[in-house]
Amino acid sequence: MVKIAVLGYGTVGSGVVKVIDDNHEEVKNSAGEEVEVKYILDLRDFPGDKHEAQVVHDIEVILNDPEIKVICETMGGIEPAFTFEKRALESGKSVCTSNKELVAAHGPELVELAAKNNVSYLFEASVGGGIPEIRALNDSLKHEKIDSIMGILNGTTNYILTKMEKEGAGFATVLKRAQEKGYAERNPEADIEGYDACRKIAILASLMSGEYVHYEDIYTEGITKITIEDFEYAAKLDMTIKLLGMCKKNDDRFFAIVAPFLVPKDNILASVNNVFNAITVHGNMLGDVMFYGKGAGKEATASAVVADVVDIVRHMDKHICINMNGKKAQLTAKDNAVRQFLVRVSANEADDAKELFGTNITEIENNLGEFAFITDLISEKHFEEKKNTLKTVKGYIRVL
Amino acid sequence: MVKIAVLGYGTVGSGVVKVIDDNHEEVKNSAGEEVEVKYILDLRDFPGDKHEAQVVHDIEVILNDPEIKVICETMGGIEPAFTFEKRALESGKSVCTSNKELVAAHGPELVELAAKNNVSYLFEASVGGGIPEIRALNDSLKHEKIDSIMGILNGTTNYILTKMEKEGAGFATVLKRAQEKGYAERNPEADIEGYDACRKIAILASLMSGEYVHYEDIYTEGITKITIEDFEYAAKLDMTIKLLGMCKKNDDRFFAIVAPFLVPKDNILASVNNVFNAITVHGNMLGDVMFYGKGAGKEATASAVVADVVDIVRHMDKHICINMNGKKAQLTAKDNAVRQFLVRVSANEADDAKELFGTNITEIENNLGEFAFITDLISEKHFEEKKNTLKTVKGYIRVL
Repeated sequence: MVKIAVLGYGTVGSGVVKVIDDNHEEVKNSAGEEVEVKYILDLRDFPGDKHEAQVVHDIEVILNDPEIKVICETMGGIEPAFTFEKRALESGKSVCTSNKELVAAHGPELVELAAKNNVSYLFEASVGGGIPEIRALNDSLKHEKIDSIMGILNGTTNYILTKMEKEGAGFATVLKRAQEKGYAERNPEADIEGYDACRKIAILASLMSGEYVHYEDIYTEGITKITIEDFEYAAKLDMTIKLLGMCKKNDDRFFAIVAPFLVPKDNILASVNNVFNAITVHGNMLGDVMFYGKGAGKEATASAVVADVVDIVRHMDKHICINMNGKKAQLTAKDNAVRQFLVRVSANEADDAKELFGTNITEIENNLGEFAFITDLISEKHFEEKKNTLKTVKGYIRVL
Repeated sequence: MVKIAVLGYGTVGSGVVKVIDDNHEEVKNSAGEEVEVKYILDLRDFPGDKHEAQVVHDIEVILNDPEIKVICETMGGIEPAFTFEKRALESGKSVCTSNKELVAAHGPELVELAAKNNVSYLFEASVGGGIPEIRALNDSLKHEKIDSIMGILNGTTNYILTKMEKEGAGFATVLKRAQEKGYAERNPEADIEGYDACRKIAILASLMSGEYVHYEDIYTEGITKITIEDFEYAAKLDMTIKLLGMCKKNDDRFFAIVAPFLVPKDNILASVNNVFNAITVHGNMLGDVMFYGKGAGKEATASAVVADVVDIVRHMDKHICINMNGKKAQLTAKDNAVRQFLVRVSANEADDAKELFGTNITEIENNLGEFAFITDLISEKHFEEKKNTLKTVKGYIRVL
């Protein structure tokens, strides 16, 4: 019997307790022994709750109980979660978490701290909700030379983009509906500006590089500028628009970005719709594999936390090695990344645009009184320079 | 340093050696120690080959060498592979294999034999080539109540169906082209009749049930009867046609089938094209997750074998528990499975068809001089009975 504590009895935390309740036998069979929730840390009381008796308000009770071998941190946010996790690891308890903010900000040092104390620090649920891509990167794919990780990492923005495409509705309208349905938060900035996707690709990029990729170093654009007209152009090109987080090998270093991309319809990522997430990984032997599933949701996310608990119980008294360390990774600037762009300017600036971007552009017909075209392959740096000399840019989108 | 032997220096076997050569550092980092190929068993010699010196012709050399801890069986077929694997496990060596025929026929008893000898028997590469879905079922998803596994499990048939859809070419034409390109074998029966997909879903069904699902107990239809006209109907319905293997919980037992299905375009499986494979798993907490990648190919398949080697080295002197045993699973008959069907009969049998299948059918317009319709939900058994009373059935396809 292994006893665990859950920190935070909110959406994910109560999901963890539910998974352990409802799938008690399966958890036991998978872990090799019984798993029991001994404590639930929360500021609130939960009178009448089935687990009322397990609720405690003082972290010291948990940290000082030698019976507790695993702590699930499902509080979210940096503090006090960071302090609690550090103290847990230092007192010889393994930690698993769904807290992407904390993993993106301090994951590598927490992994090192876990190694030092011969315990484990796992965070499957921090990226892609229930999708088991982090464990796959850490075991099934770890012998591959991974040169690209790319994905749809945020369900809210993917839902918004899907509805814009399928229903021809504008960004603001769809966002409002998503908020009403609970698919978007009242303050949706973290999702729609790409910050959430940025934290997730930072975690994946750290795993890919084995170092510490700080999310603040990743160029990030959200989806707020995407319009119905953009989707009309996308349809003409047999493409769709997706907010992608990507990390690619670039000579010896690598490069990460979060931005909306035009994705050809025959790319499997174009078919990932609504709140679903997907992560593609490219290995030198394996080629492309993709992991797809619900990127959020109480039970799916909680299931990933429990998968970590099971992994820790299976490897009790052993540090599960994670390919991450605290050394800060050197990303290459986005300047040198070469790709095509869709650009839209006023019709009267067509000649200037043609002169600037040369003859190898592909014009796209439209009845919007504008000049729209796909550039030839061009570096981000040169594109930026040329774009800035145009006066009437109505929009631009990268092409995958 | 862990020394291994590779049985069979054909496509997959030479791929395994290549992965260990080319990704030597990554394999070492992942396994925690160096992995060296000490022997390669083959009837042939390979003069001039980099690994010429490792080639042996006598299995006894390998079985009697206590240095060999892991054997990769990449010969294929039942014998002598079965005997070699049994003797390896009995002599305390772990085995990993890409041999789906053998795993489908004898996997559960080999897993039991491995457990008895405290070694491991792994077979990631037997289903879905390089896709790491078996390890995921065995670790990340093992605490879920899985009620459905479904997938596109055969690359050759998926390539043929994709080309038929995209190019409007007939089955025979596309098959011929696939054979010329090496995507289909000269004797394509195992693929196009669904036998290969059947073996793979049998393996997945065994993992899902924890028992032994024999492939001969699984109802199997191939794709040889699928026509261009079927794809025209599919397009009208905003669907496509995929050969699916599926295993679903049905009360306390479960039910497996391999057959072509009409798949709605908004189902992610509809977007899995060409030689790619995909496996969706539905868990009670997790919802749907999908694993996607190359279902065949030398290096992708070999990469999965090496992933098993790594897993065994990480857990040396320990049996890696696999949810399978030799007890034969009781499948429910397909009779009770309820679904819709697309049915095509001659125009002059329209009235009879309407009378038989009732008012809740959806007629599909066509200029083929036939009466085509989608039935209401109906059990396989009732459908079969009714279909058999019609005289001019030109085709029928199940609807997912």
